[in-house]
Amino acid sequence: MKARVFVTLKNGVLDPQGKAIGNALHNLGFASVGDVRQGKVIEIELGESDSTRAKAQLKDMCEKLLANTVIEKYEIELR
Amino acid sequence: MKARVFVTLKNGVLDPQGKAIGNALHNLGFASVGDVRQGKVIEIELGESDSTRAKAQLKDMCEKLLANTVIEKYEIELR
Repeated sequence: MKARVFVTLKNGVLDPQGKAIGNALHNLGFASVGDVRQGKVIEIELGESDSTRAKAQLKDMCEKLLANTVIEKYEIELR
Repeated sequence: MKARVFVTLKNGVLDPQGKAIGNALHNLGFASVGDVRQGKVIEIELGESDSTRAKAQLKDMCEKLLANTVIEKYEIELR
């Protein structure tokens, strides 16, 4: 089973990298670009066929290693 | 319109960061974890309501700035 985990900064947290990308896009002429946020995506192959158990494991991984839950939020997508 | 752009290393390209995450997960006891790859996700707010034009713009952004197409591939998701 394949999974994708998105880790992004929480909404209130300043994201200078996202801001930099937004400014660069504006400078390149993409005027319609509004807010930009950058995060991480982690693609994991799991040897687990039960989706409920897979989700529970992934949540555990996020809490323990993948995300810093003080400033980051995560989202899990099974595929 | 909100869009998500995923930028990940192409399949043949070595991903040491992904490997490090995989090893760390193994060390934490997640034995079912297989291959791990890490990439970037960029969330963009676009002031464009036509989805075809939005997609074309996003593709342009990826080619010009967001992805290094020599070693990275990208994926666009409108939401």
